[in-house]
This record gives sequence, structure tokens and C-alpha cells, in this order.
Amino acid sequence: MRLITSGESHGPALVAVLEGLPAGLPLKPEIINFELARRQKGYGSGPRMKLERDEVQILGGVMDGNTTGGPLPLLIPNRDHDQWRGKAVEPFTTPRPGHADLTGAIKYGYRDLRLALERASARETAARVAAGAVCKHLLAQFHITIGGYVTAIGDVSGDLDGIPYQDRITRAEASEVRCPEPAAAEAMHARIRQAITNRDTLGGIVEVIALGLPPGLGSFVQWDQRLDARLGAAVLSVQAVKGVEIGPAFENARLSGTQAHDPIRLDAAAGDIYRPADRSGGLEGGITTGQPLCVRAAMKPIATTLNPQSTVDLATGQEVPTHYERSDFCPVPRAVPILEAMIAFVLADALLEKLGGDSLSDLLPRYEALRKAQLTDLPMDGVPHIFWPE
Amino acid sequence: MRLITSGESHGPALVAVLEGLPAGLPLKPEIINFELARRQKGYGSGPRMKLERDEVQILGGVMDGNTTGGPLPLLIPNRDHDQWRGKAVEPFTTPRPGHADLTGAIKYGYRDLRLALERASARETAARVAAGAVCKHLLAQFHITIGGYVTAIGDVSGDLDGIPYQDRITRAEASEVRCPEPAAAEAMHARIRQAITNRDTLGGIVEVIALGLPPGLGSFVQWDQRLDARLGAAVLSVQAVKGVEIGPAFENARLSGTQAHDPIRLDAAAGDIYRPADRSGGLEGGITTGQPLCVRAAMKPIATTLNPQSTVDLATGQEVPTHYERSDFCPVPRAVPILEAMIAFVLADALLEKLGGDSLSDLLPRYEALRKAQLTDLPMDGVPHIFWPE
Amino acid sequence: MRLITSGESHGPALVAVLEGLPAGLPLKPEIINFELARRQKGYGSGPRMKLERDEVQILGGVMDGNTTGGPLPLLIPNRDHDQWRGKAVEPFTTPRPGHADLTGAIKYGYRDLRLALERASARETAARVAAGAVCKHLLAQFHITIGGYVTAIGDVSGDLDGIPYQDRITRAEASEVRCPEPAAAEAMHARIRQAITNRDTLGGIVEVIALGLPPGLGSFVQWDQRLDARLGAAVLSVQAVKGVEIGPAFENARLSGTQAHDPIRLDAAAGDIYRPADRSGGLEGGITTGQPLCVRAAMKPIATTLNPQSTVDLATGQEVPTHYERSDFCPVPRAVPILEAMIAFVLADALLEKLGGDSLSDLLPRYEALRKAQLTDLPMDGVPHIFWPE
Amino acid sequence: MRLITSGESHGPALVAVLEGLPAGLPLKPEIINFELARRQKGYGSGPRMKLERDEVQILGGVMDGNTTGGPLPLLIPNRDHDQWRGKAVEPFTTPRPGHADLTGAIKYGYRDLRLALERASARETAARVAAGAVCKHLLAQFHITIGGYVTAIGDVSGDLDGIPYQDRITRAEASEVRCPEPAAAEAMHARIRQAITNRDTLGGIVEVIALGLPPGLGSFVQWDQRLDARLGAAVLSVQAVKGVEIGPAFENARLSGTQAHDPIRLDAAAGDIYRPADRSGGLEGGITTGQPLCVRAAMKPIATTLNPQSTVDLATGQEVPTHYERSDFCPVPRAVPILEAMIAFVLADALLEKLGGDSLSDLLPRYEALRKAQLTDLPMDGVPHIFWPE
Repeated sequence: MRLITSGESHGPALVAVLEGLPAGLPLKPEIINFELARRQKGYGSGPRMKLERDEVQILGGVMDGNTTGGPLPLLIPNRDHDQWRGKAVEPFTTPRPGHADLTGAIKYGYRDLRLALERASARETAARVAAGAVCKHLLAQFHITIGGYVTAIGDVSGDLDGIPYQDRITRAEASEVRCPEPAAAEAMHARIRQAITNRDTLGGIVEVIALGLPPGLGSFVQWDQRLDARLGAAVLSVQAVKGVEIGPAFENARLSGTQAHDPIRLDAAAGDIYRPADRSGGLEGGITTGQPLCVRAAMKPIATTLNPQSTVDLATGQEVPTHYERSDFCPVPRAVPILEAMIAFVLADALLEKLGGDSLSDLLPRYEALRKAQLTDLPMDGVPHIFWPE
Repeated sequence: MRLITSGESHGPALVAVLEGLPAGLPLKPEIINFELARRQKGYGSGPRMKLERDEVQILGGVMDGNTTGGPLPLLIPNRDHDQWRGKAVEPFTTPRPGHADLTGAIKYGYRDLRLALERASARETAARVAAGAVCKHLLAQFHITIGGYVTAIGDVSGDLDGIPYQDRITRAEASEVRCPEPAAAEAMHARIRQAITNRDTLGGIVEVIALGLPPGLGSFVQWDQRLDARLGAAVLSVQAVKGVEIGPAFENARLSGTQAHDPIRLDAAAGDIYRPADRSGGLEGGITTGQPLCVRAAMKPIATTLNPQSTVDLATGQEVPTHYERSDFCPVPRAVPILEAMIAFVLADALLEKLGGDSLSDLLPRYEALRKAQLTDLPMDGVPHIFWPE
Repeated sequence: MRLITSGESHGPALVAVLEGLPAGLPLKPEIINFELARRQKGYGSGPRMKLERDEVQILGGVMDGNTTGGPLPLLIPNRDHDQWRGKAVEPFTTPRPGHADLTGAIKYGYRDLRLALERASARETAARVAAGAVCKHLLAQFHITIGGYVTAIGDVSGDLDGIPYQDRITRAEASEVRCPEPAAAEAMHARIRQAITNRDTLGGIVEVIALGLPPGLGSFVQWDQRLDARLGAAVLSVQAVKGVEIGPAFENARLSGTQAHDPIRLDAAAGDIYRPADRSGGLEGGITTGQPLCVRAAMKPIATTLNPQSTVDLATGQEVPTHYERSDFCPVPRAVPILEAMIAFVLADALLEKLGGDSLSDLLPRYEALRKAQLTDLPMDGVPHIFWPE
Repeated sequence: MRLITSGESHGPALVAVLEGLPAGLPLKPEIINFELARRQKGYGSGPRMKLERDEVQILGGVMDGNTTGGPLPLLIPNRDHDQWRGKAVEPFTTPRPGHADLTGAIKYGYRDLRLALERASARETAARVAAGAVCKHLLAQFHITIGGYVTAIGDVSGDLDGIPYQDRITRAEASEVRCPEPAAAEAMHARIRQAITNRDTLGGIVEVIALGLPPGLGSFVQWDQRLDARLGAAVLSVQAVKGVEIGPAFENARLSGTQAHDPIRLDAAAGDIYRPADRSGGLEGGITTGQPLCVRAAMKPIATTLNPQSTVDLATGQEVPTHYERSDFCPVPRAVPILEAMIAFVLADALLEKLGGDSLSDLLPRYEALRKAQLTDLPMDGVPHIFWPE
């Protein structure tokens, strides 16, 4: 699959093009709009969220309610474009620390930093979420679910041990900060409120889970095919995300080998291999194990703060305080569907590599055949009898 | 640039092909062999390190001592291949937790797990180090240095604050565990010794630094062009690495916005912009800032432990202890040059995008022109006057 | 650069996304609309051409009249979409020979062949022409011109020897069949009129020329970097084009070596190397020579004919005559700007590889430096003194 | 799949890396050596052919006689390397018309033109043939055959009408000029002999056929996925090939629509669709039709002639005659296996896209399922009942 996004924050629209989908996937705008709405919810958002109410226009790749196999152009109008159009805007010459303002100007030779921020802005993620919604929907045909939740906002983190993954996902959606644990959620909410009062911003940690993934996606045969690398790139490509781990990787780095790996055990009754732990985050050797995939992302706090920071006006050469641009206070709850989208894209791509084919009616029996091949009795005949998610 | 590696752990050789180098770069095997030797040093290595003494054969792309612009096939013979050749080897049917044994067998249908481990093995990184050595050498023509060191082995970490980056790199090479801080290095050494005694293994944290990088490499215009994403993929593609951060990302996630970003200040005397901090790790908006680039990688402990772990013999369907395969006890010191190699590949690629061109004699004046354009006085004329590394 | 198109023939719009342009290129919709209008002119077109009057909407990548370095989403509404929307349309089950109807149905499992023809239709080339217009405009900044003309319609061909390339391009635009030689143009016109009367269709030959190309674009270092290969793919990707040659390749295949190659001569007065002939079509070893580039494309006649052809109704299993779908009678004149667009895309891409850089202000001095380096006196100092187009 | 070649003409070796093969394909060096030997046979070859006797070393990707799914490094030593090694060679400064000598020097800044010719030389095709042999072997598992033959040498062409494709392929191998028609073969042989006597060289036309291809490979959904484009690029990437057509494209361009397309007919007895003609060359809409695929390539005559041509000595600035470098007199017979290799690579790639999967045991049943799905009775249920090659 190929995914390319385009458009600017205050231009007429964002446009994603997603290519490589099989034909025959039923697809309605509602499926995409549902995820776009999720992206606009979350405590700590700035005022723009009320303006946007994003709605997708599927401009191609779908006929009679089904995908055709052709590329999908997905257009999301920017609702506040009209009020900006034609307005004379002062050039913006005071780069904000932590943004692409200064680096963009250096790279592209901009005199007006708006040219950097318009494209670098996280507004662009609406296009990714639209494409990711289609990928999630494709994965759902194979009973693969992607979901996420917040585990930390600033220095407040939640203890989610003991909450099953599916519950974490479900409960997070009911929380304004997308944290499944009520006490932590309340503390996070308070922490954001405090940041707003302080005219400051916050970052945090998001965890995204894929349930029902078959084993055998990804590969170790080439460095750029390892699923760790592909997932890591997708996650680090999201604005403000600067760290990623597959499972509890930084914690595992502190453990010894006998503690850090997931034993391979036999359920003698069922004749099944199972893994009593999942410290690997669902990947061994760059390939899915069939256990839940767990990816964790570290977001920095929003760079635009109401309390000004120190900068230099590139037009005058004077040190000045930063000028405030409308922004979120804490992007972490809203980042959940964005990260889900990017992970869904990578996993859908890996699934299609495994299955090949051009239409859903090719793919579904192939998937079923793989599943059956792995559920024969031990000792196995070439392909081991392994844990296959229900 | 393209980088592809091939070959297996006990096959005749590893072969990397690196494509996209400019013509006219002086290149000798010694430059590559130096890095290959670095990869073979480090306390905690297994017995194979003595066997290998890797030496590269440059089979093309260099004539009369200079690159030609053509692809470089780099061949590294496996010195212990002869003793394996022709030997009948029992099929290996007991997958080791944490390795690609089980996932590889599921994916490719192997009955003998050696087919997985032969290619998934970290032996493959010798080919990457060879290619990375050439990339480092290219970057050096532009006074860009890549270096790395160990900041943690298991639960022992070093406090490196106050040691300048260049010193960290230099001192690390003098340490058996590649840690620049002597007290920490000693504690790490002891911790590895203890792990060996316990028949166990360890992971840790490696930090790789690029010094002298110009601002303006990478981009925010498309998700897959952000340098965070490209560096992250390269790092997570290394065997046993499961976490990565650009600068102190997981720590930044705990801070507020006014604490986490790097102010933009004016050195009025020099007429220069400078950044008094580097919490961004050297990237803003997916683009280099001109400050030191800092990438941190979390490695899991080696999966192969002398203390057996639980597994299932795929041939018999019985739970059995894992069978020990020759391996390192702690791969972290040896991972330093491997991670440097991957980061050098990404940065060399980004530099060539910026400079274009086909021969070093095209590139050097272009680089100088960029440098000059950014050192004119403020207020700037399109391209701001910024920190340019000496 | 990346170019991806999307959308269907009777859907709401076509959308191209073009990525990789430098910043700072002045760009107005008129530049694109001019080429879109050229694509709609030409004797032998069907009735749709009157409907369309294509106009582009540049939805991003341009601010304040200049490119930003970001991707350009280019949207072209389908003007007749409204009259199709919501209309119940009978499934189309009689595949037309020569179209993608049958192969598309086999590949994607379509029951209604409209799903194939909607995307396979040459309507999609409007999106390519839009993107190609931008590429031509970029090349024009470097005084590189792309133009084309028709050399044959069916069995009528024109003798253009003796008409300079620039004149061919200019005169072709004044001809309804885009043939620069008036007598041949008249004969072609008559031949098309006859085909229309016969309820039949025609193909022909188009020649596209690039003037002012510098030497040194493309490469021989890898098979997929040879410019012959890249141009050939771009040309053969156009609907109905099934043959391509660089220069008079099929004629050259009949000659002996001493006849077929272009001598390298010295203009002693000017101190310049020159090439008295251009049988190579402007490429030697996959690299531009600095002479005019000449690419010739063979188009098959339009597959949809008013005279029915034999087919099988896939719904009934009966042999039936083909059902007529609105179509051109001879696509060849209209193919000229389409082929120019694809060739402009490949050449712009090759030029950007050579120049690197991120903004036009980076690129222009680099180009000038290359030009100067090649105009020093002989004997040359590394880079030979060669013909450089004025 | 990815294919990258490396190495130079007189360096130690050529190295191809082929990536993306499924696991479980039985593979021996003999399969590759057979094709390498075919590449070295053919009347009109120069003296080097006796030197070479190429033999491949498979350095990875195969264990216990089967592919593993990993990349294949294929090394072909240059047998005459030893006699060149260490020898002081005069710089070569007289560029030969028709070669990459002059364009390579301009692009890469070479002072010694050997740097261009060493990599640009058709010697590199040995690496392609090695990789292509593996692709042919993969296709053979699905009963797909690739073969080729010569239809013209210079101005001598053969009339092959009436000789079935399979016979053409078989008979060509018995001919020194690889032409299946004995009278034409004799005339071609005489024509080459005459060229040698005249100290001149010849080009010609090669036709490559794929038999047994299933319908449905390739696509029209994106310009760069059309099989015409992909095949065209592969063919035009071969040294000295400057023209390509899918089927008789230049001839079709002269015909009317009702003559040029292949009717779709019903074999009522068998209940099968069939195509009584194959003017499309086996592709409609960029997708295989299930008929024989036919690709024709035009090769220019060898640029190096014993009769000198005019050139300029870049070291002295004087016009001089070209200096003869050892070369073939007519490359056309030897080009047959080279073109087969490139076409096999593209088709194997397209087949793997259709089938997906990681091991031959995944792929074979999927192929059988596709075949069955297309052989049900008419009227068809979604997927039409079509001609499927035996």
C-alpha cells in the first residue's frame, strides 16, 4: 500500500490518497467520519476542535458501496478556510521553539514562517486518520482490532495492570482523557486543568494495541522489512512523537534474559502452543507472534505555550517573546486515534503482503487456509501448531 | 541510497550492496575493516568473536582508490564456514523464546529452525557495519562525525551529564563496555560478569550522537520523510533493539511545554542565533536543527541463555528446555558501531538529498554555499542566520 | 518526485498528488489549465471533450503564489458527474476487445465491468497532464522545453525531415491533428474523417522532444536508473500506447554500427565538442547527451468502435456484438500533451536528482555552476568541455 | 521483489542480489549456470566469450537445496580479472560514440573513461541473467515458460508466421543466431560474417514470449503498475536496447480499430471464452489476458567498431579516430537470454503480488484456487469463465 497526504492547515482541504486496497471491501463515509470525530475529542484540545467537525469526501476508489481496487482520494475540507481566504496576513517571523518554524525556514528558504507551520501542523493528521480508518476497517474483516489509550499525561501515569486489553480500549473511549483507569483519568484531567491555568502544555504516553493479529506478518529477511522498524517509523512520523517502544522495551533493557522473554509452553489438553507472557510486545524477529501487539509512543508537550518562550524575530534580529498561535494544551488524548491509524496502515500493508490478491473474495479463503494450516495437531508438519487468536 | 544485505550466519559470506554514493570518494578497505573490528570488541561477547576477524572485500564501485558512483558490493567471508560446510546437522526443532525461530517457522514453513536463525542472527549486522563505515566516511568529508556509547547495562546506568559529547565518544572506545564514565563502566563490567556467572544475559541502552550536522536535513512535508521516522526505523531494524527515542523523549513526555523545548536565543555579539539547550535531540519538525543529533536505543537482553528456558519441541510436541546455541552474554557494547552504521546510512542519505549531484567535486562547493548562505548578518535575507556547527 | 493519480471517469473528480517539488516555484492554475485545454483539443475527439472544459483546483503546496516544497494535490472536477449521480445504471457485462473490461473483471472479480472502465479510462490522463504541467513549468525555469507532435495517423505519415524541432512543436499546435507538416496534416485529417464515416477508429505515432536538456541526467549504474527505462515506462503507462523508441530505434536496428552512431566532433574555432547527428535520441548509456531528446510512441487505434466487434455477454454466456460507449475516434492528437506530461515528469525528476536541494534559489546557482564547469577550454580538467544547449 | 546488480567488467566479480523469493523453491547452481552458458553462446560474439565460462556462486538464501525466503546474493567471478589486476593501464580519454564514455564522464567527472565503461558494459548482464534464471525457475513451478528468439539481424528479417511459439523457442536454441527459421538464420549468419569482414557491427530485433501466463497479472489502477510500463522499463534497461513494443505495436498503429483488436469469442462446446487473435501482445489495460505475452526489443548495432569512428581526445583536445576495445560484432543472439531474464523478473514479481505468501507451499494451492475459480460454467458468478492456459 502507499499512503500520501497533502494540503495545509488553513488551505481549502486536506487530501490523502491510499492505494493498494483489495476490491470488494464495503466502505461508507460514516466509517471514516467516526474516526475523524474521535480525533476531535479529548480534554485539553484548543478551540479549533469546535470549528472543524471534519467530514470526508471519498472522491474515488469506491463504486456501488465497495472498493474497486483503485486508489482512494479522501478529501477533508478545512471548515475555517473561508474566513482566512484572501485575508492579508502579516508575515510570521518569530520561530517557536519545538516547532518546524526555524528548521523549515532554513531548509526551504521561507521568509514567512507560516509556510512551514501550515504543512508541519498536526492538522495534517486528519488525512492520516481518514486513511487509517479504511485500514482498520480492512483489518476488521479479518477480526483484527486496533485500539489505544493514554497511560500517562505529564508526570501522572495510570496503573493498567490487570485490566484486559479489550477493556482498556473500550473504557478509554468513555474517558475525556482516554485513560481506562478512572482514578488515573481523574488525576490526568486535573493535571491538564492545572497546565491550562499555568498557561502551559503537557505531553504523555499512548499505548496502541492490535488484537487478533495472526502470527507471521513482517519479516527478518531484510532490515527494512522488520515490523519493529516499519511500526516505529509510522509512530515517529506523527507530529510531537519522539519516542517509541515495542512492548515495555526500555523496562526490558533493565532485566536479565531469563526474565525478559516469553516462554513457549504447551497446553497439553488443547495440543496448543501458548505464551504465558507478552514482554515482546507481540513481535519476535520482526514478525508477529500471534499475541497482542503493543506499541508505546512518547509525545512531547505541545510546543506552543501561552506563557511566551524566548525566540528571535528573523525580520528584525531582536530577541522577542514567542507569539501565541491557537493550539491544544495537551494533544495526548487526541493522539490515540492518530497512532491507531498509522499502526493500522502498517499492519494492513503487512497483511496484504502475506495474503496477496486483488479482491476480498480472494483474501478471505486464503486467510482461512492459513488459520487451518496452523491448527493441526502436534507434532506439526512443516508449519507448527501455534496460538492463533480467536 | 539503497542498502540491501544478504547471506547467512554460517554460509560462505555476508554481502551488502550500497548504492547511491557519489563518485570521487577515496575509499580503502581499511576504513571498513576498522569498523568491522570495532564491532567485534566489547566485554560480554561470546566465543565467536575470536573466530571472526572480519575483513571486507570491496568487489566493485571503487577504481583507482575512488568510488565511481556505481553500487558497492561488500563481501565479508564467514571464517568458520569451512568447518560447517558439508557437515550433517541435526534439524533444530526447539524454538528459543525471544528469537525468530518460532515466528520464522510459522511464516516461511520451515521444519528446521536453523533456516530462521541463520538469517535472523545478528551476524548479519557485519554487513550493515561495512556499509555504514562507507557512509560515515562520506559524512566525514563534510566534517560530520557519528559516535556512540553505552549509557546502561541492565539496571546499571551511568551519569554522563557534564561530559562533552566528543569526549564521551572518545572515552567510550577506551572502555571494554563502551561507557565513557569510568565508575559506571566498572559497575557495568561487574554486572556483566555476574550475568555470565548466573548463566544469564543482559541488555541496555546505547546513545548515538551526530556532531557537525548542518541544519535542514529531513523534512516534514510527508510522513515518511520525517527524519525521526527514518532514524527510528533504522534503529529498530537492528536485532534486539525494541525501543528508540530522539533525545530524552520519554523524559520530555513528563515535563511541561515551557520546560521541554529549546529556547531560540541571540548571541548579540556574534550576531548568531543559538540554542542554549538540546532537549529536542537535534530534530524539530523532522528536520535537523544544527545541534548535536542524539538517538537512544533500548536493547533487550540476549534471548539465548545458558540457563534453559521453557519451549516446545516442534518435532515431538513435548515441552523441553531450550538448547543452547553459541551466543553473546551482553550485546550492548558491540551494538554501538552497529547503531552508528545505521544512523550514518540515514544521515548520509538525507545529506545527499539536500546536495544532489554525482561526484564529491559537485557536492563540496554546494555544501560550502549552503554554509555561507546561513552565515550572513541578521535580519536575514530569506534564509536565517543560524547556528552552523564548526 | 512521486506522482499518484486517483479518481474515476464519472466520479466527482480526478485527483493527482505530485510530491518533491522545490519551494519557491511561482505557480498559478492558469499554467495547468493551459495544458488541460490542450488535452481537450484535437480532431477526432468524441463528444465528451465539449463537456469537460477541465479546470484544476490546486488544493495545497502553493502559498502566496509559490510552491512551498510540500505535495501538490491537484483536483479536476468531472463536469458531467452531476448528471450521472444517483442514476441507476444497468450493469455492463459485455467486455470490449482491447479494453481493460475483461482483464479487470478477471483480476478484481467485478460483476459490473464499469468498475474496470471507470478507472482504466483515458480520462485519468487529465490528472497526469495537470501534474506534468507543473513539471514542464519547473523545467522551463532551466530553459528546458518539452513539446510534441504527430508523425502518423493510421497509415498516413508525415515527412518532417528538414523542419527544425522547435518549429515542429510550434506548428503542431496550429494544426487540428497536431502535425507540423501541412500536407500530411491534411491527409491525416481526411483519414480520420474517413474512419468516422466508416464507424471505425485510428491510432498513430507521436514524437515528443525535449530541447535544452543538460547532459548528465540519468545513469547507467543500475538497470532501473537508466533514463531509457524510466522514459519508456512513463510512455508505456499511457492508455493505448504499446510501443516506444528512443530516437529511431527500430530503424537503427537495421543499420550497421558505423551508420547508427553519432560521431563526436570538435568545433575547433569554438573549442567545443559537438555531435553532427542525433540518432541516439539524446541518450547514451542511459544518460542525456545534451542533444535534443526524442521519444516516439506507438498508439493502437481506439478499442471502442461504432462498428460492433464480437464479444461474449458475461451475464448470459451468449456471443453478442459490443455495445458502444461514448469515445474518441482518434486519440493521437490529444495524446501529445499527455505524453509530454509523462516525459516532463521523468525529466524533472532526473534534474532534481542531479541538483538536489529544496528551493529554486538553491537550484538555479547549482545549475549555472554545472553549466560553467562544462564550458572551460579543452583539454578538460575532469569534466569535459561539451555541447551545452543554449 | 528487488533486484540490484553490482560489480564491474574487469573487477573481481559481478554480484546480483535478488530479494523477495518465497521459501521452499528447490534451487541448484546448475539452473543458473545453464542460463549463463546460453548468454555466452551466439554467432557474432567477440573473443571474450571464450574466456568467461561464467559460473555462479550462490552465497546465501538457499539452505539444504531450497530457498529460505531470504535474499539471494549471486556472485559471478570475472575469470580474466587476475590478468588485469595490478596492471598499470593508460587512462582512456577517447570517448566512443554510442557508449556511456562521454556522458558518464560528464555526469561523474571521470578523467579516465574506463570508469564509465567498466560499469556501463553489457558484461553486467551476466548478473541479470543469473537473477532471471531464478525467476524463470520460479515461474516454471506454475508451468509458465519464458523463451525468446531473433527475428531480425540488421536488415535481414525472418518470417516466423506459422511457426508455433513453443517451436520458435525450441528451434532458436539450435541456431547459432537464435533464429528459428532456417533460411532466415542462414541469411543472418551471412550478414554477420559480412559485417565482421567489413570491420563493422550489427543490431536487430529480439522477441520474447511468455507461455502459460494466467490472466490477471499487472493492473491499470496506477500508471506505474501497468505491466506494459514495467515490462518496457525492464527491456529498455538492457544495454543497447532502445525500442520496445508489446505485440506488433508499431504495426497496429497503422491499422483501424476493427482490425487491431482481438475479438472475444465463445467456444460453445467447451463453454469457454477464447481469443482467436493476439494482436494485443497478451496485455489489455496493463493486465495479462491469459494469451501468450509477446515483447519485442530493438537493439542498436554495437557501438564499438573495428572501423574507427570520429571522436575527440579529451586529454589533448584533438579530433582522433576511436580506439578499438574488445567487443562483440553482433550482440543480438546473446541478448535473447538477457531479455528473457528481465521479463522473467517482472512477471515473477507480478505473480507474487497476485499470490502473496511466503513459501511455495502457500502459493501453489492459491494458484490452483484461482485457476479453478475461472473454469466454472458460464454465465459466470463474478469471475468470468475465461481462457486459462493449459
